[in-house]
Amino acid sequence: MKKLVVGIDIGGTHTVFGLVNQEGECLVQDSLYTKDFKEFESFIQALSKGIKKLTLKGEEKFNLLGIGIGAPNANHSNCTIQNASNLQWEGVLPLGEMMEKELGLPVKVTNDANAAALAEMYYGGAKGMKNFIVLTLGTGLGSGIVINNQVLYGHSGFAGEMGHMIVRPEGRHCGCGRYGCLETYVSATGIKRTISKLFAKYCYESELRNIPFNRMSAKQIANAAYGGDQIAIEAFEFTGKILGIALANVIAVNNPEAIFLAGGLAKAGDLILKPSRYHMEENMLPIYRGKTSLHLTSVKGNSGILGSAAMLWKQIE
Amino acid sequence: MKKLVVGIDIGGTHTVFGLVNQEGECLVQDSLYTKDFKEFESFIQALSKGIKKLTLKGEEKFNLLGIGIGAPNANHSNCTIQNASNLQWEGVLPLGEMMEKELGLPVKVTNDANAAALAEMYYGGAKGMKNFIVLTLGTGLGSGIVINNQVLYGHSGFAGEMGHMIVRPEGRHCGCGRYGCLETYVSATGIKRTISKLFAKYCYESELRNIPFNRMSAKQIANAAYGGDQIAIEAFEFTGKILGIALANVIAVNNPEAIFLAGGLAKAGDLILKPSRYHMEENMLPIYRGKTSLHLTSVKGNSGILGSAAMLWKQIE
Repeated sequence: MKKLVVGIDIGGTHTVFGLVNQEGECLVQDSLYTKDFKEFESFIQALSKGIKKLTLKGEEKFNLLGIGIGAPNANHSNCTIQNASNLQWEGVLPLGEMMEKELGLPVKVTNDANAAALAEMYYGGAKGMKNFIVLTLGTGLGSGIVINNQVLYGHSGFAGEMGHMIVRPEGRHCGCGRYGCLETYVSATGIKRTISKLFAKYCYESELRNIPFNRMSAKQIANAAYGGDQIAIEAFEFTGKILGIALANVIAVNNPEAIFLAGGLAKAGDLILKPSRYHMEENMLPIYRGKTSLHLTSVKGNSGILGSAAMLWKQIE
Repeated sequence: MKKLVVGIDIGGTHTVFGLVNQEGECLVQDSLYTKDFKEFESFIQALSKGIKKLTLKGEEKFNLLGIGIGAPNANHSNCTIQNASNLQWEGVLPLGEMMEKELGLPVKVTNDANAAALAEMYYGGAKGMKNFIVLTLGTGLGSGIVINNQVLYGHSGFAGEMGHMIVRPEGRHCGCGRYGCLETYVSATGIKRTISKLFAKYCYESELRNIPFNRMSAKQIANAAYGGDQIAIEAFEFTGKILGIALANVIAVNNPEAIFLAGGLAKAGDLILKPSRYHMEENMLPIYRGKTSLHLTSVKGNSGILGSAAMLWKQIE
């Protein structure tokens, strides 16, 4: 009988889940609107129900081996979510325990950026690499670090918070309460802040001036830049410069083989890749030049689902 | 019969070597003035001769198991020194091969900061820790990173160049050719540069104004600060601030359990430890607070000798 695992990607806005085979193909998937659920308990019940419904689809029979979940602020070692600022449920949530009770299957939990790193390692551009980093450029900036073929968890389970490296002391105010964190510049939200700053600095006409801050998306900024909008183009150049220097610094610490960009802002393609690569090379210690490469993710499909499913497959192999 | 290994610490100025037992005691040691040797060959011959002389001292017989060497820009995987800017010999030097030929013993080579990390792990404050970092604050700033009980070498063998993280884009000119590297601020040389800057900024009297730049040492600056010299005190505060922010950033990447300060500038004790710790805590993402500690090294003796000897003991165990 065919074997499958469940992969779940819990995000602040949407939660996506699907059934994944060993080759990393998501055969069927569905989603929930995370914000619909005031109580964590009702969210877990709806999610379990959704998964049960998926498993009834199609005619072929299969064996369900387990559940992998990627979530913000997830703690790998005890399968909880801890004080996630972009989820509406506070405190420590026993995610693994509750899902196991609902579905009677083994559960593995990791944070969303680590799931993206696992997806890159098993199904993307990092196949065969032992040391690499994946950055997820979404509302914030997450990072999953792989060292010697293993996701780096560090001493207390929270390695890979590169979004909170301080790149400009006394710089932009961050959601974490501090100032100048990388994600205040390099993320979908960060580039919007840069656009605002450039509105103040220049007189150039820009179609983006017609969009309220709260409605502006990284996609709109990318479209404007591709259309020749000078403010949008400069915003990408500035974002790439900040990111490139930060990457050169991380290379001086961990000396990875490659770095991959994923998430909403990475969908801008060359607009974000080219200036980041240029400034990374420019600021790299000479001994590293030509030895660490920068790429866009090549994972096809939802890397949260695929990467969290990979935790199960990896264990089973 | 008693078993011993040879530990060697090759530095730009001095080379120190000794015989080390399994408990990490250096029983007998000697040194050479590295700069005396124009040719690398004659250095190797003198070093081998010195080691042979050591082994003849004392009456007790023992078995010599191998040689561990810590050296600047040393490549662990092929036992060479590669383009070390603070040694007078250029190019790639086959250190391991030549020593093995001279003494007929197995040789292991690592860079000096990794040797310091190994010494901390086996004989210092990092005993029992799986994830930690050692910084050597000397002429430059070296770092040895241990992850999951293993020294991190990274993709091309050069992980741990934290001295070349750019902390002030367009900041001080560095020996590597770039600007704003951490070691231009945080090292024995870096604090001298800060003293010079403060001479320009303030009118305060300072005994350090009588010492030429080229003759000033970290020890003299520390002594002045302990004596109440305002310029020296401010130099340590500034150095600690730059270091503290950089450490908070590295914690956000690798989440180590502890960080240790070693090398000449660390001998200033609380003068460097206290401001560094304050600014590290102040700039740390809240989830890490209280989980990563900062210490002075507690290795007794030469950590280059002890750490490079430990490579042999570790392999033998």
